[in-house]
Amino acid sequence: MKLMRLGEPGHERPVVRVDVDHYVDVGDVVPDFDEAFFGSGGLATLPALVASKQAAGAATPFTDERVGAPIARPHQILCIGLNYSDHAKETGQAVPSEPILFTKSPNTLVGPNDDVRIPRGSTKPDWEVELGIVIGRRTSYLDSVDEARDAIAGFTVVNDVSERAFQMERGGQWSKGKSAETFNPTGPWLVTPDEISDVGDLGMWLDVNGVRRQDGSTSTMIFDPYFIVHHLSQFMVLEPGDLIDTGTPPGVGMGFDPQIWLQPGDVMELGIDGLGSQRQTVVGPR
Amino acid sequence: MKLMRLGEPGHERPVVRVDVDHYVDVGDVVPDFDEAFFGSGGLATLPALVASKQAAGAATPFTDERVGAPIARPHQILCIGLNYSDHAKETGQAVPSEPILFTKSPNTLVGPNDDVRIPRGSTKPDWEVELGIVIGRRTSYLDSVDEARDAIAGFTVVNDVSERAFQMERGGQWSKGKSAETFNPTGPWLVTPDEISDVGDLGMWLDVNGVRRQDGSTSTMIFDPYFIVHHLSQFMVLEPGDLIDTGTPPGVGMGFDPQIWLQPGDVMELGIDGLGSQRQTVVGPR
Repeated sequence: MKLMRLGEPGHERPVVRVDVDHYVDVGDVVPDFDEAFFGSGGLATLPALVASKQAAGAATPFTDERVGAPIARPHQILCIGLNYSDHAKETGQAVPSEPILFTKSPNTLVGPNDDVRIPRGSTKPDWEVELGIVIGRRTSYLDSVDEARDAIAGFTVVNDVSERAFQMERGGQWSKGKSAETFNPTGPWLVTPDEISDVGDLGMWLDVNGVRRQDGSTSTMIFDPYFIVHHLSQFMVLEPGDLIDTGTPPGVGMGFDPQIWLQPGDVMELGIDGLGSQRQTVVGPR
Repeated sequence: MKLMRLGEPGHERPVVRVDVDHYVDVGDVVPDFDEAFFGSGGLATLPALVASKQAAGAATPFTDERVGAPIARPHQILCIGLNYSDHAKETGQAVPSEPILFTKSPNTLVGPNDDVRIPRGSTKPDWEVELGIVIGRRTSYLDSVDEARDAIAGFTVVNDVSERAFQMERGGQWSKGKSAETFNPTGPWLVTPDEISDVGDLGMWLDVNGVRRQDGSTSTMIFDPYFIVHHLSQFMVLEPGDLIDTGTPPGVGMGFDPQIWLQPGDVMELGIDGLGSQRQTVVGPR
Protein backbone atom coordinates (compact mmCIF):
# COMPACT_ATOMS: atom_id res chain seq x y z
CA MET A 1 0.00 0.00 0.00
CA LYS A 2 0.87 3.63 -0.47
CA LEU A 3 -0.52 5.80 2.32
CA MET A 4 -0.96 9.53 1.71
CA ARG A 5 -2.51 12.54 3.39
CA LEU A 6 -4.26 15.17 1.25
CA GLY A 7 -5.48 18.65 2.14
CA GLU A 8 -4.34 21.94 3.60
CA PRO A 9 -1.71 22.03 6.38
CA GLY A 10 -3.24 20.89 9.65
CA HIS A 11 -6.36 19.63 7.88
CA GLU A 12 -5.01 16.67 5.89
CA ARG A 13 -7.18 13.57 5.55
CA PRO A 14 -5.77 10.05 5.22
CA VAL A 15 -6.11 8.29 1.86
CA VAL A 16 -4.63 5.24 0.16
CA ARG A 17 -3.26 5.54 -3.37
CA VAL A 18 -4.67 2.67 -5.45
CA ASP A 19 -3.17 3.51 -8.86
CA VAL A 20 -1.31 6.32 -10.56
CA ASP A 21 -4.53 8.29 -11.03
CA HIS A 22 -6.72 7.30 -8.08
CA TYR A 23 -6.95 7.14 -4.31
CA VAL A 24 -9.45 5.82 -1.77
CA ASP A 25 -10.38 8.18 1.04
CA VAL A 26 -10.35 6.40 4.41
CA GLY A 27 -10.91 9.51 6.54
CA ASP A 28 -14.40 8.38 7.58
CA VAL A 29 -12.90 5.35 9.38
CA VAL A 30 -9.33 6.41 10.21
CA PRO A 31 -8.91 9.78 11.98
CA ASP A 32 -5.30 10.10 10.83
CA PHE A 33 -2.12 8.16 10.10
CA ASP A 34 -0.75 8.94 13.54
CA GLU A 35 0.61 7.29 16.68
CA ALA A 36 -2.85 5.99 17.67
CA PHE A 37 -3.42 4.51 14.19
CA PHE A 38 -0.12 2.65 13.99
CA GLY A 39 -0.18 1.72 17.68
CA SER A 40 -3.61 0.12 17.47
CA GLY A 41 -2.74 -2.06 14.49
CA GLY A 42 -4.63 0.15 12.03
CA LEU A 43 -2.22 -0.64 9.22
CA ALA A 44 -3.25 -4.31 9.25
CA THR A 45 -6.93 -3.41 8.82
CA LEU A 46 -6.35 -1.03 5.91
CA PRO A 47 -6.19 -3.49 2.96
CA ALA A 48 -9.67 -4.89 3.69
CA LEU A 49 -11.08 -1.41 4.21
CA VAL A 50 -9.63 -0.16 0.93
CA ALA A 51 -10.79 -3.28 -0.94
CA SER A 52 -14.35 -2.90 0.29
CA LYS A 53 -14.40 0.79 -0.59
CA GLN A 54 -12.98 0.06 -4.04
CA ALA A 55 -15.59 -2.65 -4.59
CA ALA A 56 -18.21 0.00 -3.76
CA GLY A 57 -16.68 2.29 -6.39
CA ALA A 58 -15.10 4.74 -3.96
CA ALA A 59 -11.88 5.47 -5.90
CA THR A 60 -11.33 9.19 -6.50
CA PRO A 61 -9.15 10.82 -9.17
CA PHE A 62 -6.16 12.83 -7.94
CA THR A 63 -6.48 16.58 -8.52
CA ASP A 64 -3.99 19.34 -7.84
CA GLU A 65 -4.90 19.23 -4.16
CA ARG A 66 -1.94 19.69 -1.80
CA VAL A 67 -0.11 16.54 -0.73
CA GLY A 68 0.79 16.54 2.97
CA ALA A 69 3.36 14.41 4.73
CA PRO A 70 2.06 10.81 4.71
CA ILE A 71 2.07 10.65 8.52
CA ALA A 72 0.90 13.06 11.20
CA ARG A 73 3.48 14.94 13.27
CA PRO A 74 5.37 12.13 15.02
CA HIS A 75 6.48 11.76 18.63
CA GLN A 76 10.06 11.99 17.38
CA ILE A 77 12.06 12.57 14.22
CA LEU A 78 15.28 10.66 14.83
CA CYS A 79 18.17 11.07 12.43
CA ILE A 80 21.26 9.03 11.66
CA GLY A 81 24.35 11.02 10.75
CA LEU A 82 27.10 10.16 8.28
CA ASN A 83 25.47 6.87 7.29
CA TYR A 84 26.96 6.69 3.78
CA SER A 85 30.70 6.19 3.69
CA ASP A 86 31.23 8.57 0.74
CA HIS A 87 29.16 11.29 2.45
CA ALA A 88 31.23 10.98 5.63
CA LYS A 89 34.29 11.46 3.44
CA GLU A 90 32.94 14.58 1.70
CA THR A 91 32.22 16.22 5.08
CA GLY A 92 35.76 15.48 6.25
CA GLN A 93 34.55 13.30 9.13
CA ALA A 94 35.41 9.74 10.10
CA VAL A 95 33.17 6.83 9.14
CA PRO A 96 31.24 6.10 12.36
CA SER A 97 31.69 2.80 14.18
CA GLU A 98 28.03 2.81 15.23
CA PRO A 99 25.02 4.93 14.24
CA ILE A 100 25.30 8.61 15.17
CA LEU A 101 21.96 9.77 16.55
CA PHE A 102 20.59 13.29 16.51
CA THR A 103 17.06 14.65 16.37
CA LYS A 104 14.96 17.16 14.46
CA SER A 105 12.06 19.05 15.99
CA PRO A 106 8.92 17.04 15.05
CA ASN A 107 7.19 20.21 13.85
CA THR A 108 9.66 20.43 10.95
CA LEU A 109 7.48 17.85 9.16
CA VAL A 110 5.88 19.30 6.01
CA GLY A 111 4.51 17.96 2.74
CA PRO A 112 6.77 16.77 -0.08
CA ASN A 113 6.10 19.78 -2.30
CA ASP A 114 5.79 22.54 0.31
CA ASP A 115 8.14 25.50 0.28
CA VAL A 116 11.37 25.16 2.26
CA ARG A 117 12.01 28.34 4.22
CA ILE A 118 15.55 29.55 4.92
CA PRO A 119 15.72 30.53 8.61
CA ARG A 120 16.72 34.00 9.75
CA GLY A 121 20.47 34.41 10.10
CA SER A 122 21.16 31.41 7.86
CA THR A 123 24.31 31.40 5.77
CA LYS A 124 24.69 27.70 4.89
CA PRO A 125 21.35 26.03 4.08
CA ASP A 126 21.84 22.60 2.51
CA TRP A 127 19.91 19.59 1.18
CA GLU A 128 19.94 15.85 1.98
CA VAL A 129 17.84 13.22 0.22
CA GLU A 130 17.21 10.36 2.64
CA LEU A 131 15.30 7.14 3.13
CA GLY A 132 12.77 7.60 5.94
CA ILE A 133 11.62 4.73 8.18
CA VAL A 134 8.25 4.93 9.92
CA ILE A 135 7.90 2.83 13.08
CA GLY A 136 4.82 0.60 13.19
CA ARG A 137 4.52 -0.33 16.87
CA ARG A 138 5.90 0.52 20.30
CA THR A 139 9.45 -0.86 20.10
CA SER A 140 12.02 -1.44 22.83
CA TYR A 141 14.98 -3.79 23.26
CA LEU A 142 14.55 -5.75 20.04
CA ASP A 143 16.31 -9.08 20.47
CA SER A 144 17.71 -9.22 16.96
CA VAL A 145 18.24 -7.12 13.86
CA ASP A 146 15.82 -9.37 12.00
CA GLU A 147 13.07 -8.61 14.52
CA ALA A 148 13.21 -4.98 13.37
CA ARG A 149 11.35 -5.97 10.20
CA ASP A 150 8.14 -6.36 12.20
CA ALA A 151 8.60 -2.97 13.86
CA ILE A 152 8.59 -1.00 10.60
CA ALA A 153 5.33 0.35 9.11
CA GLY A 154 6.98 1.46 5.88
CA PHE A 155 9.38 3.73 4.07
CA THR A 156 9.21 7.21 2.62
CA VAL A 157 11.34 9.96 1.06
CA VAL A 158 12.63 12.78 3.28
CA ASN A 159 14.68 15.88 2.60
CA ASP A 160 16.72 16.35 5.79
CA VAL A 161 17.23 20.08 5.20
CA SER A 162 20.16 21.37 7.24
CA GLU A 163 21.73 24.68 8.18
CA ARG A 164 25.43 23.86 8.39
CA ALA A 165 26.50 26.93 10.36
CA PHE A 166 23.78 26.32 12.97
CA GLN A 167 24.68 22.61 12.97
CA MET A 168 28.45 22.86 13.26
CA GLU A 169 29.35 26.31 14.57
CA ARG A 170 26.75 27.05 17.27
CA GLY A 171 27.43 24.85 20.24
CA GLY A 172 28.52 21.38 19.31
CA GLN A 173 25.30 19.36 18.98
CA TRP A 174 23.59 19.06 15.60
CA SER A 175 19.89 19.54 16.47
CA LYS A 176 20.24 23.33 16.34
CA GLY A 177 20.94 23.17 12.60
CA LYS A 178 18.24 20.64 11.78
CA SER A 179 15.09 21.98 13.42
CA ALA A 180 13.96 25.12 11.57
CA GLU A 181 10.37 25.14 10.35
CA THR A 182 9.83 23.33 6.99
CA PHE A 183 13.14 21.46 7.37
CA ASN A 184 11.75 17.94 6.91
CA PRO A 185 9.67 17.54 3.72
CA THR A 186 8.28 14.00 3.82
CA GLY A 187 6.46 11.83 1.30
CA PRO A 188 4.58 11.75 -1.02
CA TRP A 189 3.86 8.21 0.15
CA LEU A 190 4.39 5.90 3.06
CA VAL A 191 5.10 2.67 1.18
CA THR A 192 4.56 -0.57 3.08
CA PRO A 193 7.48 -3.02 3.02
CA ASP A 194 5.61 -5.62 0.92
CA GLU A 195 5.78 -3.23 -2.07
CA ILE A 196 9.57 -2.88 -1.91
CA SER A 197 11.61 -5.80 -3.22
CA ASP A 198 14.91 -4.74 -1.61
CA VAL A 199 15.13 -1.61 0.54
CA GLY A 200 18.91 -2.06 0.45
CA ASP A 201 19.10 -1.46 -3.28
CA LEU A 202 17.09 1.67 -4.09
CA GLY A 203 18.43 4.43 -6.30
CA MET A 204 18.11 7.94 -4.81
CA TRP A 205 18.74 11.36 -6.34
CA LEU A 206 18.42 15.08 -5.74
CA ASP A 207 18.53 17.94 -8.26
CA VAL A 208 18.88 21.65 -7.53
CA ASN A 209 17.58 23.84 -10.38
CA GLY A 210 17.72 20.85 -12.69
CA VAL A 211 21.37 19.98 -11.95
CA ARG A 212 21.92 16.52 -10.48
CA ARG A 213 23.66 16.98 -7.11
CA GLN A 214 23.04 13.67 -5.35
CA ASP A 215 22.99 10.38 -7.22
CA GLY A 216 23.29 7.47 -4.84
CA SER A 217 21.82 4.21 -3.66
CA THR A 218 20.74 2.74 -0.36
CA SER A 219 23.20 -0.03 -1.20
CA THR A 220 26.02 2.16 0.13
CA MET A 221 24.46 2.73 3.56
CA ILE A 222 26.82 1.81 6.40
CA PHE A 223 24.00 0.77 8.77
CA ASP A 224 20.88 -0.62 7.09
CA PRO A 225 17.32 0.18 8.26
CA TYR A 226 16.98 -2.99 10.34
CA PHE A 227 20.32 -2.44 12.06
CA ILE A 228 19.29 1.15 12.84
CA VAL A 229 15.90 0.25 14.34
CA HIS A 230 17.41 -2.56 16.41
CA HIS A 231 20.21 -0.27 17.59
CA LEU A 232 17.96 2.66 18.57
CA SER A 233 15.61 0.31 20.43
CA GLN A 234 18.45 -0.43 22.87
CA PHE A 235 18.63 3.22 23.95
CA MET A 236 15.01 4.43 23.94
CA VAL A 237 11.43 3.37 23.39
CA LEU A 238 10.36 4.03 19.80
CA GLU A 239 6.71 5.03 19.49
CA PRO A 240 4.34 4.04 16.65
CA GLY A 241 4.58 6.64 13.89
CA ASP A 242 8.09 7.80 14.84
CA LEU A 243 10.13 8.82 11.79
CA ILE A 244 13.80 7.98 11.29
CA ASP A 245 15.84 9.88 8.68
CA THR A 246 18.57 7.39 7.82
CA GLY A 247 21.33 9.58 6.41
CA THR A 248 22.28 10.92 3.02
CA PRO A 249 24.54 9.81 0.14
CA PRO A 250 27.27 12.10 -1.25
CA GLY A 251 26.51 15.34 -3.06
CA VAL A 252 25.34 17.76 -0.39
CA GLY A 253 26.21 21.43 -0.86
CA MET A 254 28.75 21.31 1.95
CA GLY A 255 30.75 18.71 0.00
CA PHE A 256 31.40 20.82 -3.10
CA ASP A 257 34.48 22.98 -3.64
CA PRO A 258 33.51 25.77 -3.44
CA GLN A 259 30.57 24.87 -1.24
CA ILE A 260 27.07 25.48 -2.61
CA TRP A 261 24.28 26.82 -0.39
CA LEU A 262 20.56 27.05 -1.12
CA GLN A 263 19.22 30.43 -2.22
CA PRO A 264 15.67 31.82 -2.33
CA GLY A 265 14.09 30.76 -5.61
CA ASP A 266 16.06 27.53 -5.89
CA VAL A 267 14.04 24.42 -6.74
CA MET A 268 14.93 21.07 -5.16
CA GLU A 269 13.65 17.88 -6.77
CA LEU A 270 14.43 14.54 -5.17
CA GLY A 271 13.25 10.98 -5.04
CA ILE A 272 13.91 7.34 -4.26
CA ASP A 273 13.05 4.38 -6.53
CA GLY A 274 9.55 3.16 -5.76
CA LEU A 275 8.94 5.78 -3.07
CA GLY A 276 8.02 8.71 -5.29
CA SER A 277 9.48 12.18 -5.66
CA GLN A 278 9.35 15.64 -4.10
CA ARG A 279 9.69 19.19 -5.41
CA GLN A 280 10.31 22.17 -3.13
CA THR A 281 10.84 25.84 -3.84
CA VAL A 282 13.25 27.57 -1.47
CA VAL A 283 11.94 30.81 0.02
CA GLY A 284 13.61 33.47 2.13
CA PRO A 285 13.22 34.06 5.87
CA ARG A 286 9.91 35.34 7.20
CA MET B 1 -0.82 28.64 40.68
CA LYS B 2 0.60 25.19 41.08
CA LEU B 3 -0.64 22.82 38.38
CA MET B 4 -0.50 19.07 39.00
CA ARG B 5 -1.69 15.85 37.41
CA LEU B 6 -2.88 13.01 39.66
CA GLY B 7 -3.65 9.39 38.84
CA GLU B 8 -2.13 6.29 37.31
CA PRO B 9 0.31 6.57 34.35
CA GLY B 10 -1.59 7.44 31.20
CA HIS B 11 -4.73 8.26 33.18
CA GLU B 12 -3.71 11.40 35.08
CA ARG B 13 -6.27 14.15 35.56
CA PRO B 14 -5.38 17.85 35.82
CA VAL B 15 -5.76 19.55 39.18
CA VAL B 16 -4.64 22.80 40.81
CA ARG B 17 -3.00 22.73 44.24
CA VAL B 18 -4.69 25.37 46.42
CA ASP B 19 -2.86 24.78 49.71
CA VAL B 20 -0.51 22.27 51.28
CA ASP B 21 -3.37 19.86 51.96
CA HIS B 22 -5.88 20.50 49.16
CA TYR B 23 -6.37 20.61 45.42
CA VAL B 24 -9.17 21.53 43.04
CA ASP B 25 -9.93 19.04 40.29
CA VAL B 26 -10.39 20.78 36.92
CA GLY B 27 -10.63 17.62 34.84
CA ASP B 28 -14.28 18.24 34.02
CA VAL B 29 -13.37 21.43 32.13
CA VAL B 30 -9.74 20.88 31.07
CA PRO B 31 -8.95 17.60 29.27
CA ASP B 32 -5.27 17.82 30.18
CA PHE B 33 -2.37 20.21 30.72
CA ASP B 34 -1.11 19.63 27.18
CA GLU B 35 -0.22 21.44 23.98
CA ALA B 36 -3.88 22.22 23.21
CA PHE B 37 -4.45 23.61 26.73
CA PHE B 38 -1.44 25.93 26.71
CA GLY B 39 -1.87 26.82 23.03
CA SER B 40 -5.49 27.91 23.48
CA GLY B 41 -4.75 30.21 26.41
CA GLY B 42 -6.13 27.77 28.97
CA LEU B 43 -3.70 28.91 31.62
CA ALA B 44 -5.25 32.40 31.68
CA THR B 45 -8.72 30.96 32.34
CA LEU B 46 -7.61 28.71 35.19
CA PRO B 47 -7.63 31.19 38.14
CA ALA B 48 -11.31 32.07 37.65
CA LEU B 49 -12.21 28.41 37.19
CA VAL B 50 -10.40 27.42 40.38
CA ALA B 51 -11.89 30.34 42.34
CA SER B 52 -15.43 29.43 41.34
CA LYS B 53 -14.87 25.79 42.20
CA GLN B 54 -13.36 26.74 45.55
CA ALA B 55 -16.31 29.04 46.29
CA ALA B 56 -18.54 26.03 45.61
CA GLY B 57 -16.52 24.01 48.14
CA ALA B 58 -14.75 21.81 45.59
CA ALA B 59 -11.35 21.56 47.32
CA THR B 60 -10.25 17.96 47.87
CA PRO B 61 -7.68 16.69 50.39
CA PHE B 62 -4.53 15.12 48.97
CA THR B 63 -4.27 11.37 49.54
CA ASP B 64 -1.44 8.99 48.71
CA GLU B 65 -2.58 8.96 45.08
CA ARG B 66 0.25 8.90 42.55
CA VAL B 67 1.53 12.28 41.35
CA GLY B 68 2.19 12.38 37.61
CA ALA B 69 4.31 14.86 35.69
CA PRO B 70 2.49 18.23 35.81
CA ILE B 71 2.25 18.37 32.00
CA ALA B 72 1.27 15.80 29.39
CA ARG B 73 3.96 14.31 27.15
CA PRO B 74 5.30 17.36 25.30
CA HIS B 75 6.11 17.85 21.62
CA GLN B 76 9.77 18.16 22.64
CA ILE B 77 12.03 17.89 25.66
CA LEU B 78 14.89 20.25 24.86
CA CYS B 79 17.97 20.28 27.08
CA ILE B 80 20.75 22.76 27.65
CA GLY B 81 24.17 21.24 28.37
CA LEU B 82 26.91 22.51 30.66
CA ASN B 83 24.88 25.54 31.77
CA TYR B 84 26.54 25.94 35.20
CA SER B 85 30.17 26.99 35.05
CA ASP B 86 31.20 24.74 37.96
CA HIS B 87 29.48 21.74 36.35
CA ALA B 88 31.29 22.32 33.06
CA LYS B 89 34.51 22.31 35.04
CA GLU B 90 33.74 19.05 36.86
CA THR B 91 33.05 17.29 33.53
CA GLY B 92 36.38 18.53 32.15
CA GLN B 93 34.68 20.48 29.36
CA ALA B 94 34.94 24.12 28.34
CA VAL B 95 32.37 26.69 29.44
CA PRO B 96 30.17 27.10 26.36
CA SER B 97 30.00 30.42 24.53
CA GLU B 98 26.33 29.87 23.72
CA PRO B 99 23.71 27.34 24.89
CA ILE B 100 24.47 23.74 23.91
CA LEU B 101 21.25 22.10 22.74
CA PHE B 102 20.42 18.42 22.85
CA THR B 103 17.15 16.56 23.20
CA LYS B 104 15.55 13.78 25.23
CA SER B 105 12.87 11.48 23.89
CA PRO B 106 9.53 13.02 25.03
CA ASN B 107 8.37 9.63 26.30
CA THR B 108 11.02 9.79 29.05
CA LEU B 109 8.59 12.02 30.98
CA VAL B 110 7.42 10.37 34.24
CA GLY B 111 6.09 11.52 37.59
CA PRO B 112 8.33 13.04 40.26
CA ASN B 113 8.24 9.96 42.51
CA ASP B 114 8.17 7.19 39.90
CA ASP B 115 10.93 4.60 39.77
CA VAL B 116 13.94 5.40 37.59
CA ARG B 117 14.90 2.32 35.60
CA ILE B 118 18.54 1.65 34.66
CA PRO B 119 18.62 0.69 30.96
CA ARG B 120 20.05 -2.61 29.75
CA GLY B 121 23.78 -2.48 29.18
CA SER B 122 24.16 0.59 31.37
CA THR B 123 27.41 1.09 33.26
CA LYS B 124 27.30 4.82 34.13
CA PRO B 125 23.81 5.98 35.16
CA ASP B 126 23.89 9.45 36.71
CA TRP B 127 21.62 12.15 38.17
CA GLU B 128 21.06 15.86 37.37
CA VAL B 129 18.71 18.16 39.27
CA GLU B 130 17.52 20.90 36.91
CA LEU B 131 15.13 23.79 36.56
CA GLY B 132 12.52 22.95 33.90
CA ILE B 133 10.84 25.61 31.76
CA VAL B 134 7.41 24.91 30.23
CA ILE B 135 6.56 26.92 27.11
CA GLY B 136 3.19 28.69 27.19
CA ARG B 137 2.52 29.54 23.55
CA ARG B 138 3.80 28.90 20.04
CA THR B 139 7.11 30.76 20.02
CA SER B 140 9.39 31.71 17.14
CA TYR B 141 11.94 34.46 16.54
CA LEU B 142 11.45 36.37 19.78
CA ASP B 143 12.67 39.92 19.27
CA SER B 144 14.25 40.27 22.70
CA VAL B 145 15.29 38.28 25.73
CA ASP B 146 12.69 40.17 27.76
CA GLU B 147 9.93 38.99 25.42
CA ALA B 148 10.66 35.43 26.52
CA ARG B 149 8.87 36.14 29.82
CA ASP B 150 5.52 36.06 28.02
CA ALA B 151 6.36 32.76 26.32
CA ILE B 152 6.84 30.82 29.57
CA ALA B 153 3.92 29.04 31.25
CA GLY B 154 5.91 28.20 34.35
CA PHE B 155 8.73 26.30 36.00
CA THR B 156 9.17 22.83 37.44
CA VAL B 157 11.77 20.43 38.85
CA VAL B 158 13.32 17.83 36.55
CA ASN B 159 15.83 15.07 37.08
CA ASP B 160 17.71 14.88 33.77
CA VAL B 161 18.80 11.26 34.32
CA SER B 162 21.76 10.41 32.10
CA GLU B 163 23.73 7.35 31.03
CA ARG B 164 27.24 8.71 30.61
CA ALA B 165 28.63 5.81 28.56
CA PHE B 166 25.69 6.01 26.14
CA GLN B 167 26.04 9.82 26.09
CA MET B 168 29.78 10.11 25.57
CA GLU B 169 31.09 6.83 24.18
CA ARG B 170 28.46 5.69 21.67
CA GLY B 171 28.65 7.96 18.65
CA GLY B 172 29.26 11.57 19.53
CA GLN B 173 25.80 13.09 20.07
CA TRP B 174 24.27 13.17 23.54
CA SER B 175 20.63 12.14 22.90
CA LYS B 176 21.56 8.44 22.99
CA GLY B 177 22.44 8.72 26.69
CA LYS B 178 19.46 10.83 27.69
CA SER B 179 16.46 9.03 26.24
CA ALA B 180 15.92 5.76 28.14
CA GLU B 181 12.44 5.23 29.59
CA THR B 182 11.85 6.96 32.97
CA PHE B 183 14.84 9.29 32.40
CA ASN B 184 12.97 12.57 32.96
CA PRO B 185 11.07 12.68 36.28
CA THR B 186 9.17 15.99 36.28
CA GLY B 187 7.20 17.85 38.92
CA PRO B 188 5.49 17.70 41.36
CA TRP B 189 4.16 21.09 40.25
CA LEU B 190 4.18 23.43 37.32
CA VAL B 191 4.53 26.74 39.16
CA THR B 192 3.40 29.85 37.31
CA PRO B 193 5.94 32.72 37.20
CA ASP B 194 3.85 35.03 39.42
CA GLU B 195 4.55 32.70 42.37
CA ILE B 196 8.34 32.90 41.98
CA SER B 197 10.01 36.10 43.17
CA ASP B 198 13.32 35.51 41.36
CA VAL B 199 13.85 32.45 39.17
CA GLY B 200 17.52 33.44 39.03
CA ASP B 201 18.03 32.87 42.75
CA LEU B 202 16.54 29.49 43.66
CA GLY B 203 18.40 26.96 45.78
CA MET B 204 18.51 23.44 44.31
CA TRP B 205 19.72 20.16 45.76
CA LEU B 206 19.94 16.43 45.19
CA ASP B 207 20.62 13.64 47.69
CA VAL B 208 21.46 10.01 46.92
CA ASN B 209 20.65 7.67 49.81
CA GLY B 210 20.51 10.66 52.13
CA VAL B 211 23.94 12.04 51.16
CA ARG B 212 23.86 15.54 49.69
CA ARG B 213 25.47 15.33 46.23
CA GLN B 214 24.26 18.51 44.51
CA ASP B 215 23.84 21.77 46.41
CA GLY B 216 23.56 24.69 44.02
CA SER B 217 21.54 27.68 42.93
CA THR B 218 20.07 28.95 39.70
CA SER B 219 22.17 32.07 40.41
CA THR B 220 25.19 30.30 38.91
CA MET B 221 23.51 29.49 35.58
CA ILE B 222 25.53 30.73 32.60
CA PHE B 223 22.44 31.33 30.42
CA ASP B 224 19.25 32.24 32.30
CA PRO B 225 15.78 30.94 31.34
CA TYR B 226 14.85 34.03 29.31
CA PHE B 227 18.12 33.96 27.38
CA ILE B 228 17.57 30.26 26.63
CA VAL B 229 14.00 30.64 25.35
CA HIS B 230 14.96 33.63 23.20
CA HIS B 231 17.98 31.76 21.85
CA LEU B 232 16.13 28.54 21.00
CA SER B 233 13.35 30.51 19.30
CA GLN B 234 15.89 31.65 16.69
CA PHE B 235 16.53 28.06 15.60
CA MET B 236 13.14 26.33 15.83
CA VAL B 237 9.48 26.86 16.60
CA LEU B 238 8.74 26.06 20.25
CA GLU B 239 5.30 24.55 20.78
CA PRO B 240 3.00 25.19 23.77
CA GLY B 241 3.79 22.66 26.50
CA ASP B 242 7.36 22.03 25.32
CA LEU B 243 9.72 21.34 28.23
CA ILE B 244 13.26 22.71 28.50
CA ASP B 245 15.71 21.13 30.97
CA THR B 246 18.10 24.01 31.66
CA GLY B 247 21.23 22.26 32.89
CA THR B 248 22.59 21.08 36.22
CA PRO B 249 24.82 22.52 38.95
CA PRO B 250 27.94 20.68 40.17
CA GLY B 251 27.78 17.35 42.00
CA VAL B 252 26.82 14.78 39.40
CA GLY B 253 28.24 11.27 39.81
CA MET B 254 30.56 11.74 36.84
CA GLY B 255 32.27 14.61 38.66
CA PHE B 256 33.43 12.62 41.71
CA ASP B 257 36.82 10.93 42.04
CA PRO B 258 36.26 8.04 41.90
CA GLN B 259 33.09 8.49 39.87
CA ILE B 260 29.79 7.39 41.47
CA TRP B 261 27.10 5.64 39.42
CA LEU B 262 23.50 4.87 40.37
CA GLN B 263 22.74 1.33 41.55
CA PRO B 264 19.45 -0.55 41.88
CA GLY B 265 17.95 0.28 45.28
CA ASP B 266 19.43 3.77 45.43
CA VAL B 267 17.04 6.56 46.40
CA MET B 268 17.33 9.99 44.80
CA GLU B 269 15.69 12.97 46.51
CA LEU B 270 15.88 16.37 44.87
CA GLY B 271 14.18 19.73 44.83
CA ILE B 272 14.25 23.43 44.02
CA ASP B 273 13.12 26.24 46.35
CA GLY B 274 9.42 26.94 45.80
CA LEU B 275 9.04 24.25 43.14
CA GLY B 276 8.69 21.21 45.41
CA SER B 277 10.67 18.01 45.67
CA GLN B 278 10.95 14.56 44.11
CA ARG B 279 11.88 11.09 45.37
CA GLN B 280 12.79 8.21 43.06
CA THR B 281 13.90 4.67 43.71
CA VAL B 282 16.38 3.30 41.18
CA VAL B 283 15.47 -0.11 39.77
CA GLY B 284 17.37 -2.52 37.55
CA PRO B 285 16.85 -3.17 33.83
CA ARG B 286 13.69 -4.94 32.69
